[in-house]
Amino acid sequence: MLITPRTLSGFKDKLPKEAIAKSDLIKKIIEVFDSFGFTPIETPHLEYAEVLLKQGSDEIQKELYAFKDHGGREVALRFDLTLPLARFISQHRHSLPLPFKRYAIGNVFRGERAQKGRYREFTQCDFDFIGSNSIASDAEIIEVIASILQKLEVGKFTISINHRMILNGICQFLGIDDVHNTLRIVDKLDKIGAEGVSVELMESLGYSKQSVASLLELISLSQTGSSADFLREIAYLKEKNELLAKGISDLESLCKILDYIGLECYKINFSIARGLGYYTGIVYESTLDDLSSIGSVCSGGRYDNLTQTFCKEAMSGVGASVGLDRLLSALEELGRLEGKQTYAEVLCVAMDEEYIPYLHKVASILRNEKISTETYPEITKLKKPFSYAHQKGHAYVLIVGEEEIREKKVTLKNMSSGEQEGLSIKDAIRKIKAQQ
Amino acid sequence: MLITPRTLSGFKDKLPKEAIAKSDLIKKIIEVFDSFGFTPIETPHLEYAEVLLKQGSDEIQKELYAFKDHGGREVALRFDLTLPLARFISQHRHSLPLPFKRYAIGNVFRGERAQKGRYREFTQCDFDFIGSNSIASDAEIIEVIASILQKLEVGKFTISINHRMILNGICQFLGIDDVHNTLRIVDKLDKIGAEGVSVELMESLGYSKQSVASLLELISLSQTGSSADFLREIAYLKEKNELLAKGISDLESLCKILDYIGLECYKINFSIARGLGYYTGIVYESTLDDLSSIGSVCSGGRYDNLTQTFCKEAMSGVGASVGLDRLLSALEELGRLEGKQTYAEVLCVAMDEEYIPYLHKVASILRNEKISTETYPEITKLKKPFSYAHQKGHAYVLIVGEEEIREKKVTLKNMSSGEQEGLSIKDAIRKIKAQQ
Repeated sequence: MLITPRTLSGFKDKLPKEAIAKSDLIKKIIEVFDSFGFTPIETPHLEYAEVLLKQGSDEIQKELYAFKDHGGREVALRFDLTLPLARFISQHRHSLPLPFKRYAIGNVFRGERAQKGRYREFTQCDFDFIGSNSIASDAEIIEVIASILQKLEVGKFTISINHRMILNGICQFLGIDDVHNTLRIVDKLDKIGAEGVSVELMESLGYSKQSVASLLELISLSQTGSSADFLREIAYLKEKNELLAKGISDLESLCKILDYIGLECYKINFSIARGLGYYTGIVYESTLDDLSSIGSVCSGGRYDNLTQTFCKEAMSGVGASVGLDRLLSALEELGRLEGKQTYAEVLCVAMDEEYIPYLHKVASILRNEKISTETYPEITKLKKPFSYAHQKGHAYVLIVGEEEIREKKVTLKNMSSGEQEGLSIKDAIRKIKAQQ
Repeated sequence: MLITPRTLSGFKDKLPKEAIAKSDLIKKIIEVFDSFGFTPIETPHLEYAEVLLKQGSDEIQKELYAFKDHGGREVALRFDLTLPLARFISQHRHSLPLPFKRYAIGNVFRGERAQKGRYREFTQCDFDFIGSNSIASDAEIIEVIASILQKLEVGKFTISINHRMILNGICQFLGIDDVHNTLRIVDKLDKIGAEGVSVELMESLGYSKQSVASLLELISLSQTGSSADFLREIAYLKEKNELLAKGISDLESLCKILDYIGLECYKINFSIARGLGYYTGIVYESTLDDLSSIGSVCSGGRYDNLTQTFCKEAMSGVGASVGLDRLLSALEELGRLEGKQTYAEVLCVAMDEEYIPYLHKVASILRNEKISTETYPEITKLKKPFSYAHQKGHAYVLIVGEEEIREKKVTLKNMSSGEQEGLSIKDAIRKIKAQQ
């Protein structure tokens, strides 16, 4: 009996077009990571369940792919790359040079309810700077984000920056105790607007209209001109309490670095909260100016308690996560995906079995000249390899038949212009390279 | 209570040195795949258990990480990339351009008994050419193997080639019925030698000394001079039966292509059987001449029944698997691993907090010049960043202090020579680039 070939609900194959687009994206991102001295690490997909459970929210516990392995151990597939990093740092802390800068690109698993555009297995791309309390490392993470977005040529973008202590300081100043739930609601500002947030704050937390108005007034503060002007304007807040003083002074140090290197793509914005509970310092998110609707494509911040589940040594860090899927959507919407299904530029076709050795020779000469070249293995009418090349996106089809071999030539067809001509191998190479 | 930070038995973290070596290796292999027009695909790590179970051996069934998911489905982590490929091809066969050439690099999971050097999660690297019966595609897989091994500069290597039909034909000719178990034992020739194989064939299959001798004589045939000479010498076997005739004639077509393109690294060897049951045509394995003890670093062959579990359409293919772990060991033994823990060439250090903006500016100028550059975030005595650079492998430490800023210079220390000098940024860049 045949088995129906199918993927699990919420899981997905990546066919060549999609896999190539993703691989191209990751290659560019990795080049930036490498250029800043971040190094790759790998952790297993499978961990002791307890490693993943302790810090995870209830929701994540429900979504965890957990089971007993052959040895009766409670194990689970990782649902993010942060807890494995915490475990990794704690386990290897005595052999890692500090500060430790790592990136990790890998798949994570969440048994969420199936819904459009959400998958149960997806790729995360994180980079972190562990073991430094210096604002210089916060600055570097932001520089990396800016470099990635510049390299991807996604147009203008804005990195919106805030500090958790500023939000906490504002709450303290206004006498708000339930900071956690307040920020959870404030975080919806983008989605439900100021009015929605006001209503929810009053209804679910019972705040007065007056205190909600004061809160919204303060968290609506955001930079319009230069960061220096903005920081001068709000300097009076430093006197309200220590949290505000520390938060604003950190932002001052940060902006000094970012301004000096000429980074113009950032903006301080007091409404940025970032969902994750574990951030404790500077936080940021990045949106594309022309595609702000897709949300933040890269977010992160500073956290102080990464390793607290595993060891007594406090190990702080700062890091961010690149939203690969959102960036792929953005590149697609911006028409920046080539949509090719192969890296090969040339498809070589033989008109008869006996020319195949010669065909493979021509292909290997082309490859030696750094021209990616595929050979068509079958002998058929030319219609088939032409349609194959058309579907996959080869720029040229190179044909070898009796006449070509006799005259020591090849026929080169340009697939976009349709132009076709007999050329020596040397001239064919010259022609192809001129278009590269 | 603290949780002990540990990986599961048989699972392993890759620290930067190892992760960089692996990533460098994969990068080079992918360049070869891309240059031949193989395209990447991705399939999920998790599949319906039935997709993986049908064709797997009993051993694999025992080692499978299988469990019930949230929806009560029987699921399992993939244990290889071949069954997911069969499922993929069957599922998408109407939308894939044929022939379909794909590569996949991904982790697989086997709950084997823990033993040294064997892991329960490891990375496989497969490439296959699906949907072509032409020997041209067999030739291309071998060309890819040769290109990979040449690119990795692992010294001389030998691709040993055989044809399953030749082995079957020899068995038929000698009146041997239990071909499967005979070949299973013959496959141990490398490990236990001709005598060991003889004894086992007689003891466990009850063959006579005479027929074992005839079998060993035939399967010991292997090319010493040119392939053309060898094929001429054994041409008489073509008359013994159809299997031998087809096997030898396929090898003739193959060698015609390989010889024409000047590939000298292969050898026909009738003793190559390849463990996996599913090969049906030409098979091969590759060994490094200086490190033959590590076994085959890349093996593969032709199979006819890839999709038989999932659909009625027979879909044949030819493919191979690159042994990443073995190649990494080989590169290490050959002293070809650099052992670096970072891609950054330069570590930039500031002598005081106030120079950090300038330091980040210098670093960004270096990166714009394609010099990978890391900044040290802390202000400490120089001993610490020097030891950090030494441990991670930066070629240079660049220092910015009061004097450097005043004179618009930087101090550049060459970490291998110990030489240290004051230079303008421009001259520092020139110096670093001269060594790249």
